Amino acid sequence: MDAFATLRPHLDRCGADAWALVASIGNRTAAPPPGITRPTYSAAEELAAEAVIAFARERRLVVNPDAFGNLHVTRPGDPAGRAVASGSHLDSVPNGGNYDGLAGAVAAVTVLAAAEAAGLRLRRPLLAIAMRGEESPWFGTAYIGSRLMLGHSTLPEIGDLRRADSGRGLADHLRALGYPGAPGAVLDPADLDCFLELHIEQGPLLEAADAPLGIASAIRGNVRFPSARCRGVYGHSAALPRSHRQDAVLAVAELALALDTYWAGLIGRGDDSFVATVGKFFTDPSQHAMTKVAGEVGFSLNVGSTTPDVLAAARAFILDEVARISAKRGVVFDLGPEVGTAPVALSARLIGMAEDSASALGIPALRMPTVGHDAAMFALKGVEASVLLMRNQNGSHNPDESMTEEDFLSGVRVLARTMLLAADAG
Amino acid sequence: MDAFATLRPHLDRCGADAWALVASIGNRTAAPPPGITRPTYSAAEELAAEAVIAFARERRLVVNPDAFGNLHVTRPGDPAGRAVASGSHLDSVPNGGNYDGLAGAVAAVTVLAAAEAAGLRLRRPLLAIAMRGEESPWFGTAYIGSRLMLGHSTLPEIGDLRRADSGRGLADHLRALGYPGAPGAVLDPADLDCFLELHIEQGPLLEAADAPLGIASAIRGNVRFPSARCRGVYGHSAALPRSHRQDAVLAVAELALALDTYWAGLIGRGDDSFVATVGKFFTDPSQHAMTKVAGEVGFSLNVGSTTPDVLAAARAFILDEVARISAKRGVVFDLGPEVGTAPVALSARLIGMAEDSASALGIPALRMPTVGHDAAMFALKGVEASVLLMRNQNGSHNPDESMTEEDFLSGVRVLARTMLLAADAG
Repeated sequence: MDAFATLRPHLDRCGADAWALVASIGNRTAAPPPGITRPTYSAAEELAAEAVIAFARERRLVVNPDAFGNLHVTRPGDPAGRAVASGSHLDSVPNGGNYDGLAGAVAAVTVLAAAEAAGLRLRRPLLAIAMRGEESPWFGTAYIGSRLMLGHSTLPEIGDLRRADSGRGLADHLRALGYPGAPGAVLDPADLDCFLELHIEQGPLLEAADAPLGIASAIRGNVRFPSARCRGVYGHSAALPRSHRQDAVLAVAELALALDTYWAGLIGRGDDSFVATVGKFFTDPSQHAMTKVAGEVGFSLNVGSTTPDVLAAARAFILDEVARISAKRGVVFDLGPEVGTAPVALSARLIGMAEDSASALGIPALRMPTVGHDAAMFALKGVEASVLLMRNQNGSHNPDESMTEEDFLSGVRVLARTMLLAADAG
Repeated sequence: MDAFATLRPHLDRCGADAWALVASIGNRTAAPPPGITRPTYSAAEELAAEAVIAFARERRLVVNPDAFGNLHVTRPGDPAGRAVASGSHLDSVPNGGNYDGLAGAVAAVTVLAAAEAAGLRLRRPLLAIAMRGEESPWFGTAYIGSRLMLGHSTLPEIGDLRRADSGRGLADHLRALGYPGAPGAVLDPADLDCFLELHIEQGPLLEAADAPLGIASAIRGNVRFPSARCRGVYGHSAALPRSHRQDAVLAVAELALALDTYWAGLIGRGDDSFVATVGKFFTDPSQHAMTKVAGEVGFSLNVGSTTPDVLAAARAFILDEVARISAKRGVVFDLGPEVGTAPVALSARLIGMAEDSASALGIPALRMPTVGHDAAMFALKGVEASVLLMRNQNGSHNPDESMTEEDFLSGVRVLARTMLLAADAG
């Protein structure tokens, strides 16, 4: 591919600068320790945005922040038409890592900067987008920047949620940074040819498979019960015979293990789409005792799959188990509010282009499901979307999250080549 | 049995008065609601002691409080010799019931009052003992009154523990009520022929079996791990595959269910001596999340049996399971401090006398294991001991604990006849 050969030296130079930019933003948003804290619509997230703006403008790119603070980066001489877009988010979870989001946002700008430096003429315009507020801990909801930008919700529809650290409302935070938070969408999905997101893996599969790159097969949907309860009856640990117990600990333990066994069964049948987690499981500290049978347990249930049928079957399994265990153990389950999202299909065309690019570059790549990212917001608006995953160490959403420069550069190269393929496609 | 026939009308009259006394003490120690609160060495426990003293002295009995506040009640004309003793404790847990302890303490005094009213002459002296501080929530340790009285420990050996509600030390509380807390034992086990304790069942077995009385086969010992931990590794609930998880919730759930299955197996083989409880099970509220694999769980383990071999086998089973689950799930268990007591054998001779008495009185009685009571302190000093259990509703250690007057009187009658048998035995 001639265009990529022309791009390559510029991409390598810009890629090295981009890696330094990511590190510099990390160093300046590392307080309070440990790890990185760039809250949604905070000064730290704004600092990251300003650094990306400076990086882009120094490389002769045009940057337009939108009404919700998302940065839209373009090349001045690009033709009109439906854009080949890429990007990710600038914010982080509290005390998280530096690469989750930021690396992909910077990578997209890097591709445009290298294309501009190389003077590439393409059939479609390129667009890099650095988004805001993807992480849910700050306002209790995810994808705020991309949801507002694409018109999934207006600001009044999202509601004036309070930010966990400041206690101030969402509209107030936007206003303080000078973003009007205009009511409507600011990016028409019809103006996009496709959207590619480069993101760290957040899991250990690429490391285990010795592959620097993952190509997402689909984004998992999920069925979630964030605040479920099981009520039994408290009793004397020595005086109450087994036959008379209504033990909430054993009931929830049985549900958690049944779900784990169900998962193992799916894996045994070759299904790698499923995940299941009981992340919270707690007796009541004001009531529980070593000498009391547990009368109540709070817990969470969270199952995911890329396939709607698998998700529906798992949900039915949970409800069946709840009924079976209730009858067996004399307890009452209240699963509480159910939340979740549908699985999101990704573009077979883009997956093919990404696999072609990884192969052409000699970069081992693994097809695998991924979790929710901003890309889902594009796909749900009918934009062909794809997610490329960079190998990273120690998971994400924690201070130990880590990545090598080499893997970052591999990701940037595959992203760039795939964007060029899409931009020159007929 | 002629002596019992002589006693019976007096016993019925004294028994009715005793039931009224129990109710009156309950009414005066019912604050703060709900339930009954008579803390160890509190004004409320002292009020109960004073009411028992008045009841006994009105009925021409002699009452001597000892250096630790335990009441020793005797008949003025009894012969010298080794006494047939009975009693229980005056304190309650916080917001507990009125009958746990108090009913048995008052019942013992009632037997002596009736014997005195009937003018019975017996070969052995009778002794009723109303004890202090049996419940562990107040100072974090059980049997304080009987341990000090019988010389299991001195006050300095117990240590100057703080009472949970007042924050003041044990010695200070004793002093405030005028008890010197003298260093040595005040009751020589060699002066006792035997000790019988009448206590509520605290469980549902007698209610289920339609029997007003239980005769304890033995007192369960236990093996306890009050503050165990399991450490896994926190991880992303969607990005972390099953094969890479080190999930502390699933590990502790598996241990709890394995223990429950082990218990079911023992029951299937006819062993009714065993109990097992995981009363506490909690992920870390500062770390857990619906979207995180659980990296740590705190929990308690509590198993009991009347048989040392069964207890030892259960302990070995727990350690084997901990090793197996650690290897399987990549977690680390730290069971923390181990506490517990050995099972206590009860007197076959007294069990026989109690069964003979229940049978003679036409009162259905069930042989069953029981939990720790003051009687254990006597048995561990070589005194022949027995525990009689009265049917009660709604368990104990809670405000709903309940008992009927009829079941109380049945207990008093069997206790009285058994004491007369022991007092006249050669």
